[in-house]
Amino acid sequence: MRPRFYLPSVDASGRGELDDEEAGHLTRVLRLGVGAEIDVFDGRGGMFRALVTEAGRARVAVQRLEPAAAAPEPAVRVTLVMSVLKGDKMDAVVRDAVMMGAVAIQPVVAARSEVTVTALQRGRRAERWQRIAVASVKQCGRAVVPIVHAPVTLLTWSADPRDRPVLALMEPAGHTAAGLDGIARAEALDLVVGPEGGWSAEEAAEFAARGFRSVSLGRRTLRADVAPVVALAALYASWNGW
Amino acid sequence: MRPRFYLPSVDASGRGELDDEEAGHLTRVLRLGVGAEIDVFDGRGGMFRALVTEAGRARVAVQRLEPAAAAPEPAVRVTLVMSVLKGDKMDAVVRDAVMMGAVAIQPVVAARSEVTVTALQRGRRAERWQRIAVASVKQCGRAVVPIVHAPVTLLTWSADPRDRPVLALMEPAGHTAAGLDGIARAEALDLVVGPEGGWSAEEAAEFAARGFRSVSLGRRTLRADVAPVVALAALYASWNGW
Repeated sequence: MRPRFYLPSVDASGRGELDDEEAGHLTRVLRLGVGAEIDVFDGRGGMFRALVTEAGRARVAVQRLEPAAAAPEPAVRVTLVMSVLKGDKMDAVVRDAVMMGAVAIQPVVAARSEVTVTALQRGRRAERWQRIAVASVKQCGRAVVPIVHAPVTLLTWSADPRDRPVLALMEPAGHTAAGLDGIARAEALDLVVGPEGGWSAEEAAEFAARGFRSVSLGRRTLRADVAPVVALAALYASWNGW
Repeated sequence: MRPRFYLPSVDASGRGELDDEEAGHLTRVLRLGVGAEIDVFDGRGGMFRALVTEAGRARVAVQRLEPAAAAPEPAVRVTLVMSVLKGDKMDAVVRDAVMMGAVAIQPVVAARSEVTVTALQRGRRAERWQRIAVASVKQCGRAVVPIVHAPVTLLTWSADPRDRPVLALMEPAGHTAAGLDGIARAEALDLVVGPEGGWSAEEAAEFAARGFRSVSLGRRTLRADVAPVVALAALYASWNGW
């Protein structure tokens, strides 16, 4: 398998330049040079074979060639609405959700998230998560780069009008929630996952008022950083949506 | 919810002593003392309320009281046969597989595992993974401690006679493998997951010769350390086995 690089745009003749991060990966990590054959993806579903035509310190240029096969996108389009977790656990959540096939990630600050929207903005965390999403796309073989939206509070997000169903993952013990059995397959949905301490009573009430469907997955308590990947796997498996 | 401790056995009157690790958790981490109410589980499915009757430096004794509710065990009994991964990734695999509900874990050394059985024995890794399994049981609310078997080579394991079906997880690209759709629900099974580099051609041939069923989960390439939790979630979801 050829190494993969993110190249969002090329000129009319198919020439393009890798950005600094991708160029460093090509020249310093993989030690590739002029003439190397690579794959480039545009982040919108296009994957192509390409040839490295220039590989200098400051500039890596490639010529895009014929289309190549990318890993298909899931049949069920899930946006992961993820409560920001402590430390760098959110990095792993973004990485794994992208690998599973999430189409977008909306970080939210819930009542029990131990962080504020302001602190996330100051730390430029959304930009970091977007870079992690690109790295995960390269590893898993997708050609679509999911967008990582700017963090907002959970209540800001939940107040938005939306045209697709919302599933809220609940702790097995605390709330009344069923499995996926009674829930109709949707082509697109938002999946909301809570922080380490779970949802507050106000948040659970907000979900009910907005008509979100509550689900729980099994009877064991899932770690918050693993729950998203468990939920995505369960959704795809239940709905044949891989 | 009361804090949980592992207490495999008590005397005829229900008195028992915590081992050093559990005693340290109670006195030093949670700073509990005489009179504290806790839950104790015996590792075989029993959970009980208990009272701390002695909380010294060298000894923590408890009186076991009436039975308490534990998280139910999954309806589908999965033994995870996991190729040992690099570094401490295997720790997270054990932790997450126990949280999901695996009934046992068999570490195996596959052709592309970058470690030997001898090195694992010398490093007492199975004992470490067993301690991690206990810690995960405490967090997820189970009362059953899955056994972590001693590591063996994959071919030693595959040559064993067995009375239950085996599912082998395959890379999406490399091998011909279907999803879980065509596979009949089993009450108990072995799930085999490969190392970072996937299976060798010889290993794939061995699986076919032994009649193991190959499955793949979606078309994206899954990280080896996340694949077990994805597979367990997909199995439980597909077979209503949570």
